[in-house]
Amino acid sequence: MGKKLTKRSEDYSKWYNELVVKADLAENSGVRGSMVIKPYGYAIWEKMQAQLDRMFKETGHENAYFPLFIPKSYLSREAAHVEGFAKECAVVTHYRLKNAEDGSGVIVDPEAKLEEELIVRPTSETIIWDTYKKWIQSYRDLPVLVNQWANVVRWEMRTRLFLRTAEFLWQEGHTAHATREEAIQEAELMMNIYAEFAEKFMGVPVVKGLKTESERFAGALETYCIEALMQDGKALQAGTSHFLGQNFAKAFDVKFATKEGNQEYVWATSWGVSTRLMGALVMTHSDDNGLVLPPKLAPIQVVIVPIYKGEEQLAAISERVEGVVKDLRDRGVSVKFDNRDTHKPGWKFNEYELKGVPVRLGIGMRDMENQTFEVARRDTLEKQTVAADAVVDHVVGLLEEIQENIYNKALNYRESHITEVNSFEEFKEVLESKGGFLSAHWDGTPETEDKIKELTKATIRCIPLNAREEEGVCVYSGKPSKIRVLFAKAY
Amino acid sequence: MGKKLTKRSEDYSKWYNELVVKADLAENSGVRGSMVIKPYGYAIWEKMQAQLDRMFKETGHENAYFPLFIPKSYLSREAAHVEGFAKECAVVTHYRLKNAEDGSGVIVDPEAKLEEELIVRPTSETIIWDTYKKWIQSYRDLPVLVNQWANVVRWEMRTRLFLRTAEFLWQEGHTAHATREEAIQEAELMMNIYAEFAEKFMGVPVVKGLKTESERFAGALETYCIEALMQDGKALQAGTSHFLGQNFAKAFDVKFATKEGNQEYVWATSWGVSTRLMGALVMTHSDDNGLVLPPKLAPIQVVIVPIYKGEEQLAAISERVEGVVKDLRDRGVSVKFDNRDTHKPGWKFNEYELKGVPVRLGIGMRDMENQTFEVARRDTLEKQTVAADAVVDHVVGLLEEIQENIYNKALNYRESHITEVNSFEEFKEVLESKGGFLSAHWDGTPETEDKIKELTKATIRCIPLNAREEEGVCVYSGKPSKIRVLFAKAY
Repeated sequence: MGKKLTKRSEDYSKWYNELVVKADLAENSGVRGSMVIKPYGYAIWEKMQAQLDRMFKETGHENAYFPLFIPKSYLSREAAHVEGFAKECAVVTHYRLKNAEDGSGVIVDPEAKLEEELIVRPTSETIIWDTYKKWIQSYRDLPVLVNQWANVVRWEMRTRLFLRTAEFLWQEGHTAHATREEAIQEAELMMNIYAEFAEKFMGVPVVKGLKTESERFAGALETYCIEALMQDGKALQAGTSHFLGQNFAKAFDVKFATKEGNQEYVWATSWGVSTRLMGALVMTHSDDNGLVLPPKLAPIQVVIVPIYKGEEQLAAISERVEGVVKDLRDRGVSVKFDNRDTHKPGWKFNEYELKGVPVRLGIGMRDMENQTFEVARRDTLEKQTVAADAVVDHVVGLLEEIQENIYNKALNYRESHITEVNSFEEFKEVLESKGGFLSAHWDGTPETEDKIKELTKATIRCIPLNAREEEGVCVYSGKPSKIRVLFAKAY
Repeated sequence: MGKKLTKRSEDYSKWYNELVVKADLAENSGVRGSMVIKPYGYAIWEKMQAQLDRMFKETGHENAYFPLFIPKSYLSREAAHVEGFAKECAVVTHYRLKNAEDGSGVIVDPEAKLEEELIVRPTSETIIWDTYKKWIQSYRDLPVLVNQWANVVRWEMRTRLFLRTAEFLWQEGHTAHATREEAIQEAELMMNIYAEFAEKFMGVPVVKGLKTESERFAGALETYCIEALMQDGKALQAGTSHFLGQNFAKAFDVKFATKEGNQEYVWATSWGVSTRLMGALVMTHSDDNGLVLPPKLAPIQVVIVPIYKGEEQLAAISERVEGVVKDLRDRGVSVKFDNRDTHKPGWKFNEYELKGVPVRLGIGMRDMENQTFEVARRDTLEKQTVAADAVVDHVVGLLEEIQENIYNKALNYRESHITEVNSFEEFKEVLESKGGFLSAHWDGTPETEDKIKELTKATIRCIPLNAREEEGVCVYSGKPSKIRVLFAKAY
């Protein structure tokens, strides 16, 4: 398989699919809709996990683990919840195989049928609230601030690597509180943590907002979200945080004794981000040469490639490189010295460009003489020559600069792709010609929302939290509106 | 629920079940055979994971992620493998629910039946070797050294928290090699890493050995294992590492071009440890007062409990404690200062004893005057008074001492419970009166092994790697034998 990618301008979707596979992030498996996350992709996910986990723990959350299977009857307890998930549930009905009598192989043993079918969790509110009933009796038991890292399954008909897969990895926080206000605060806190993670670590600028009623999580009173914009002008929901009110507490009868001795239902939130973030990361920064990774999440931050003929030259170069590797590692930088003799330098340059390694150091015999390194940065593809004794400081500074630069580049793109539109003609015109977020007045009804979606495929991504009140009329119905919302086509 | 435990001498099994629940490690869920791992238990598991993951990465392994579901036909490809797992497979047959027409709730939609049933992975050899077929073409692609952290499901009829659950968490390494020798080396390396982890971190002494043919992993040519001994004289298999030969490469047609240009089948290993280790940890060290945790895996290594009346005293104590907390943290020790006024000191002492916190510091007004702390160690329950300015050094040293002491205590128990027996009468007598490992001659046949199991419930735990050749006769059949193997009743 060649490493040459389709250009983004030719076919953005094909470019993405090829890049994910060729850069060794993930690939399709023999199981329809399920992916294999390859070691290089998984290493990025591990860095995301580690940072998010730190942020969760710093804000008082603990990890736990709940069952993969959910009895079918649990799902049904919360009406909106089951309505939302019933159409995509993988169902376990039997617990044994046996040899077919005709010798054709193994078959499902019809005698090993479960009394009650089990659903492979699409999300864990129900099994968790069934557990919280045992954990919570009194206000002293609150808040419960728990997160789990897990796999979930939602049976999707059309799947794409990372963006939409039948099985995906995620974290799901599930918290329980004594008051409505505290639960809302928690839901907002987690949205803010997600936004901080997306911007500071992934380098992905996001809009914080609220989902409309029809886009809310099944069972939530309010869904907070962060929305990112990809390079093709389509939006991507990067994380959600739900204020669940007392819905699950009522469904699972979870009450607590207040300080005053009353019995009240517990208030809840849930929040999650998934391996979908990998898709957002790839689509925000990468280019026609391959991945562009933010230094803070890159498994390899710096690669050093020697250019040499024969063992003697390699030995000399290796000696010079050794000190640089050590000094960089002491500064907390992850470095790979690729001294394999099975591949040529040109091949290696392409390979690390494809894989998005933020900084590449080249060193050949002329650099040896001049006491220099050639320093190439992945984001701008610029190269410069740097004195060997200054290279460590230079690289450390450059990694910070790259982290900042790719964020700013994405921010500029996003800012120039939020367009205020004031008529439905304009709406359609901008959506087709330019894409991005359309900031438009909306009359607040699901009917108008549905109609616009039907006519344009654009949905309301969010009601931005920072929206100002402004008198206006709905772009579609002409009815009065006090606030602009963000529409876009979305992943 | 009272916190008082059943004594080990009264009912070891009941003691274990109560302890796991009361110490907040895990509990049963609403799903038969599946457990909830509670935050305190999960925090220990996270420490285990972090250390094992470090050891895997230091030996060149990378993490990846493979699908939860395995098409039924994949399992059948390796005959011994499917034979071994067919009887405990959870099977997904449908992918949608719908509302029952009689309004009684949701039912499985009969129209959403899968063409091919999917098995919830009991282990991942088959789906992984189906993937390796795409990854491996040439000797240059070898070795593949991959691990995954995942959940697996084996439908067990009799379950016990951590020891045997329908779903459990584990890691499974799957490696591919160019030669038989290299694969065997890898399998041995991983067994050694497991043994090092068990002994140095869990404080659990283990015997390294080989499984007999009938105890081998389904599909393996050789299974290496580490076997631990619990306080009730029963053995527990704590980790296994399998040399799989070319079985899976043949089943999934994975060949590679050698340096010489020939096509050969790839050699394989797999190896895993699971949340079962949590059971081993609890049963090796804990006592009638609760958990005893090795400092290296304890989520809280030191707890500080103030003894005071009124806010003024608490403020004074807190000021003194603050510096100690900081100094301990600077030394890498995890410390909790439990200054809650909702619980009395006596309650806290019991609570942290139950939870196995290795060191407890108490400080009251007399300690304030005398500039001392009361230092209590969990393993021996000994207390001593230590000068405040020496307490940090003392605690750091004490943590090391406790780590060593609990290992030695477990080792002494184990050593005094390996008994050489030379007749079947002696075998049965020692097994019933004392338990532990019985070192006995065996004629090498599965028939004798089965018969002994049938008559005594003891199985061959392993053929120890360090066994010396010795002329003897099988304790059961009287046939000649050259080596002693270890029998025991086991979890």
